[in-house]
Amino acid sequence: MTEPVLRYIGIVHSDISELADAPKNYTESDRTGTLEIFSEYGDALDGIAAGQTIVVLFWLHRSSRNVLKVYPRGDRSRGLRGVFSTRSPVRPNPIALSELEVCSIDGNLIAVKGLDMLDQTPIVDIKKKID
Amino acid sequence: MTEPVLRYIGIVHSDISELADAPKNYTESDRTGTLEIFSEYGDALDGIAAGQTIVVLFWLHRSSRNVLKVYPRGDRSRGLRGVFSTRSPVRPNPIALSELEVCSIDGNLIAVKGLDMLDQTPIVDIKKKID
Repeated sequence: MTEPVLRYIGIVHSDISELADAPKNYTESDRTGTLEIFSEYGDALDGIAAGQTIVVLFWLHRSSRNVLKVYPRGDRSRGLRGVFSTRSPVRPNPIALSELEVCSIDGNLIAVKGLDMLDQTPIVDIKKKID
Repeated sequence: MTEPVLRYIGIVHSDISELADAPKNYTESDRTGTLEIFSEYGDALDGIAAGQTIVVLFWLHRSSRNVLKVYPRGDRSRGLRGVFSTRSPVRPNPIALSELEVCSIDGNLIAVKGLDMLDQTPIVDIKKKID
């Protein structure tokens, strides 16, 4: 099977510009920011509203794709672990998953809370959260 | 930015061969099956063990990428909705997300429960579940 090319559907606007300043994950973040969805995908946003929790997939464009073992959270005391047993940003397909609260939506701009992504991170999908 | 090419890290083996037979999502499935991870990614599995819940991302290779609105679950009474407000398999990047119970792991073969994927569906990522 031919492996597919991802389509970037939007981009993150956040005040997180350095990796050292990024929360470890969305459960540890109260940071706010904006998901800008590109206009050609605007129709796909119909039904998203303030107050919802959405599942957002990002492409971590600065992550290595060639590392298979890491020290989780940089803690060497527990030894190396396979990336598939962690939430490390480093993995063969560096797709990150966050559950974010929708603060408001205005056209193709979704204001969110819980953001743990660098400014300019590409967005690849948004899903309804299954309760 | 250049959009990236996904790497298939493995493939699903399940007894679900028809879309009509597939559970709507993992919360409605008690089906079992096997995730075969390709040998070049075997090291990334270190730390995965029976009893864990893992988050698995799949590439829905049979889904359309060019539909932006759908009738959720085929129910026309509620009208069309944007795919990003649904769990429809149809979306610009047809990545599916399931939380699966690890029944056992033997080398590169992970036996799982809760499977809602067709046989031969490509796997693109596995993550630890955040509790």
